[in-house]
Amino acid sequence: MGTARVVFDRWSDRYAKRMADVRSSAVRDLFAAATRPDVISLSGGMPDIARVPIEEVVAAATSALRDSGLEALQYGSSEGRPNIRSVVVDLMAEVGVRAKLDDIVITAGAQQGLDLLGKIFIDPGDTIITEGPTYLGALQAFSAYQPNVVCIPMDDDGMRMDLLAEELKRLGPRGAKFIYTIPNFQNPAGVTLKPSRRRELLDLAREYDIPVIEDDPYGRLRFEGGHALPLRALDEEVIYLGTFSKILAPGLRLGWVIAPKPVLAKFLLAKQAADLCGSAYAQLTAERYFADTRWRKVLQDLIRGYSERRDAMIEALEEYFPVEAHWTVPAGGFFIWVEMPSFLDLKSILAEAVERGVTYVPGDAFYPDGRGRNCMRLGFCFAKPDDIREGIRRLAEVLEDRLELYRAFADAGALSAAAGITEERG
Amino acid sequence: MGTARVVFDRWSDRYAKRMADVRSSAVRDLFAAATRPDVISLSGGMPDIARVPIEEVVAAATSALRDSGLEALQYGSSEGRPNIRSVVVDLMAEVGVRAKLDDIVITAGAQQGLDLLGKIFIDPGDTIITEGPTYLGALQAFSAYQPNVVCIPMDDDGMRMDLLAEELKRLGPRGAKFIYTIPNFQNPAGVTLKPSRRRELLDLAREYDIPVIEDDPYGRLRFEGGHALPLRALDEEVIYLGTFSKILAPGLRLGWVIAPKPVLAKFLLAKQAADLCGSAYAQLTAERYFADTRWRKVLQDLIRGYSERRDAMIEALEEYFPVEAHWTVPAGGFFIWVEMPSFLDLKSILAEAVERGVTYVPGDAFYPDGRGRNCMRLGFCFAKPDDIREGIRRLAEVLEDRLELYRAFADAGALSAAAGITEERG
Repeated sequence: MGTARVVFDRWSDRYAKRMADVRSSAVRDLFAAATRPDVISLSGGMPDIARVPIEEVVAAATSALRDSGLEALQYGSSEGRPNIRSVVVDLMAEVGVRAKLDDIVITAGAQQGLDLLGKIFIDPGDTIITEGPTYLGALQAFSAYQPNVVCIPMDDDGMRMDLLAEELKRLGPRGAKFIYTIPNFQNPAGVTLKPSRRRELLDLAREYDIPVIEDDPYGRLRFEGGHALPLRALDEEVIYLGTFSKILAPGLRLGWVIAPKPVLAKFLLAKQAADLCGSAYAQLTAERYFADTRWRKVLQDLIRGYSERRDAMIEALEEYFPVEAHWTVPAGGFFIWVEMPSFLDLKSILAEAVERGVTYVPGDAFYPDGRGRNCMRLGFCFAKPDDIREGIRRLAEVLEDRLELYRAFADAGALSAAAGITEERG
Repeated sequence: MGTARVVFDRWSDRYAKRMADVRSSAVRDLFAAATRPDVISLSGGMPDIARVPIEEVVAAATSALRDSGLEALQYGSSEGRPNIRSVVVDLMAEVGVRAKLDDIVITAGAQQGLDLLGKIFIDPGDTIITEGPTYLGALQAFSAYQPNVVCIPMDDDGMRMDLLAEELKRLGPRGAKFIYTIPNFQNPAGVTLKPSRRRELLDLAREYDIPVIEDDPYGRLRFEGGHALPLRALDEEVIYLGTFSKILAPGLRLGWVIAPKPVLAKFLLAKQAADLCGSAYAQLTAERYFADTRWRKVLQDLIRGYSERRDAMIEALEEYFPVEAHWTVPAGGFFIWVEMPSFLDLKSILAEAVERGVTYVPGDAFYPDGRGRNCMRLGFCFAKPDDIREGIRRLAEVLEDRLELYRAFADAGALSAAAGITEERG
C-alpha cells in the first residue's frame, strides 16, 4: 500500500498514545517479499498448506453449508460453536490437557488471543515477562497496551530458569502481569523448554503469584524425541493459546484460548467488543474437516515434510555457513535461530540478501529494544528442500562477503598495531 | 457459559483498568434468548439469511477452494485480498462513493473496524461524540479505550444539528476525537439523517476540525424514498465503515473501512496486531459469490422481506400498543425505537416480557450513562410477520398491565388529593 508517504498531515497528532509503540510488522513485509518468484523466502512462517487435500476441504465446506447453512451464515456465539470447541477438547486431551467446553473460547487465530489477553491484563507501564527473543506478533499485540517488556534469555533447553528467578526476585511478588512463553519449538529460537524447567517455571510463577500464558502453535509439529507435557497439563491456572493454523490452515483464522473461568469471562467481553463473534462459516468448515477426513494422515504428512526441510536447512548451514555462525537445531516447528558475531548487523545486510534472492528476519524484530541485530530467524516451513539449500547458499555468500570485509579490517588493524601506528582513542 | 459466579478470586484485581468500563453485551444475551423456540425475538439484529440461496454459496466456496485453494487456506495480506476490495470499490461506487483499492482495508465485520478505530484514536478521558441513543456494539468497542462519550439527541431527521453545534461550541476546536454517526436507518433509532443535515454535519466537523466516522451497515436496505449520499461521498476525509453482513451473511465476518491514507496506515498496524490478517477463505468465498451469482436479486428479496416485516410491526404497534407509546417509522434497516412515559422502566419489565414469550432491548443499552430506560429497541429483521404481530401483541399486554398499575396509582393519588389527604413530603 502506498501509504505513509505523507510525513506531516492533519492526522499525525490525533492518534492515541498507545499507537506510538506499535511497530510496523516485519511479518507483513515478509509475506509480500515471499510472493516474488525470484526470491527464496526463508523469512515467513507460512505453513505448507499444499499438503492439505483441497477436495476434503471442499467436502467439509459443502457439508457445512448444506447441513447447517442457516448457522454457517449467521452470527454465532462469542465463545464459538460447541462442536468446534469439542474438537479442541479432543485435541487437547491427546497432549495431556484436560479442558471442558466452557474452558474454551475460539479466537481469530492465536493472534487474537494475544491481543485480547494484552487488552484485559496490561495497563500502561505494567511489566510483562517474555523469552528473549520472542514472537514478534506477540510483541506487536502487547505493545499497543504499553507494557514494560522484560526478556529472559534462553539456551538450548528453553528459557533459563536461573535468570527468570533472578528477575522475579528483583520484581517481587506480583511484580509482572504475566509470563509469556512458547515452550515448544519456540518462535523464533527453535528451542524447547525441557520438562524439568516446566516444573520450575510453574513453581516460580506460583511463588511470585504471576500468571503464565503458554503459546503453543507448533506443539504437534514434533519431528523426533519425546512429547513434553504442556504447562497447562501441569497447572490448570495456566492460560493456553492454540491454533488451527498449523494443523489445518491459517486461511480459516481459527485459534483458541483455554483459561480459568474468571479470565475467560473477561476475555469474552473483550472478544465481543473486538468482533462480536468469530466466523461460524469457518468454524463449521473446520468441524466437518475434523469429523469427516483423515486429518491425522495429513498432519503426519505435514510433519514429515517439515522434518525433511529442517534437515535440508541444517545440512546446508553446515555446508555453506561461515565458521563464525551458530545455530539452534529444532526438534519441531518452523524456525532456526542463527547468531553471528556481534559486529555483524544483519538488519543492514538484509537488502543485499534480497538482491541476491533470499530473505530472512533480522533478530531485532524479536526483541522490544533493538537487541538481536547480529541474529536472524530462518524459517524452513515454506520453501522446498532444494530452494532451502540454494537460499542458504546465497545467504552464506552475503555473510561471507561481509565477514571478508571485517577480516580484512581486522588484519589491517593487526598490521597497523604491529607497525606502531595505532590511532589514539578520544 | 457458567462464569462470573466467583465473586472473589485470585484474578479479580489483575485486570487492566480499561476493562472496568467494558459492559457485558446485551447483544450476546439476546442472541441466546432468540434461540428459545417459545420466545419471539424482537431484540436481535440478525439478518434473515434464510433468503440467501445456499447452493450459490456452496458454488462460491467450491470454486474459491478449487481455483484458489493455496490462497484460500494460507495467511493473506492484512489489508485484504485485492479482489474483495475491488468488490467494495464497485459497491461504493453504486452509492456515490469514489474509493480506490488502497483506500480500503477488509475487517472482521464492521465491529472490528469500530474496535480498531477506538484503539488508534482514543486516549483515556478523550471526548467522543455519538448519537444518543447509539449502537451498543460501538459503545462496547469504544469503552475499552475509556472515552468520555457525549450523546447528541436525534429527531425524525437524525442527529440534531442545533444540539451538535451547541456541544461543539462548548467543547471547542478539536474538542472531541471524532464524531461517530450511523446516518442511515440508525441503530437503534431507525431514523435517517436528512441530506441538508449531512452537509451541516460535515461543515461543523470541518469548522471544529473533528474527524467523522460514518457507520453504514444498513444503507442498502432502503424500503422507500430517495437515496441519500453517504457522508463519505461528500467529503473524502470521512472514515467509512461498511459490512457484508447485511448484503451477504454475517457468518463470513467481513466488513470494510475506507479512510484517508495516513489513518489507514495506522489502522493497518492495529489490524496486524489484532489478528495478523483476515480470513482469505471467507474473502474468496465472498469474491466468488459477488462474481458468479445474481446477488442483486437476493438483495432485492431481502429488502422486500424486511419491508414487509417493518409494515407488520408498524401495523401491530398501531393496533396493540398503548396510546402513551411513541415510535419511529424507519424507511429501511432493521429497527424501530419506542419511547414510553418516563415513569416506565423497561429494563425491569423485560423479565416479565420474556416470561410472556417476547424479547426486546431496553433503551439504556444504547446509552453510556443509564439513560433510555423508558425506551426500547424493536427489531423487525428476524421474526416472520405473523410472529412479529404476535410478539407485539404480547408485549402490548405487558405494557398495558404496567400502565394499568400506574393509572390506578395516579387515580388514587388524584382521589387522595381531592380528599385532602396527600402525604407530606420529606
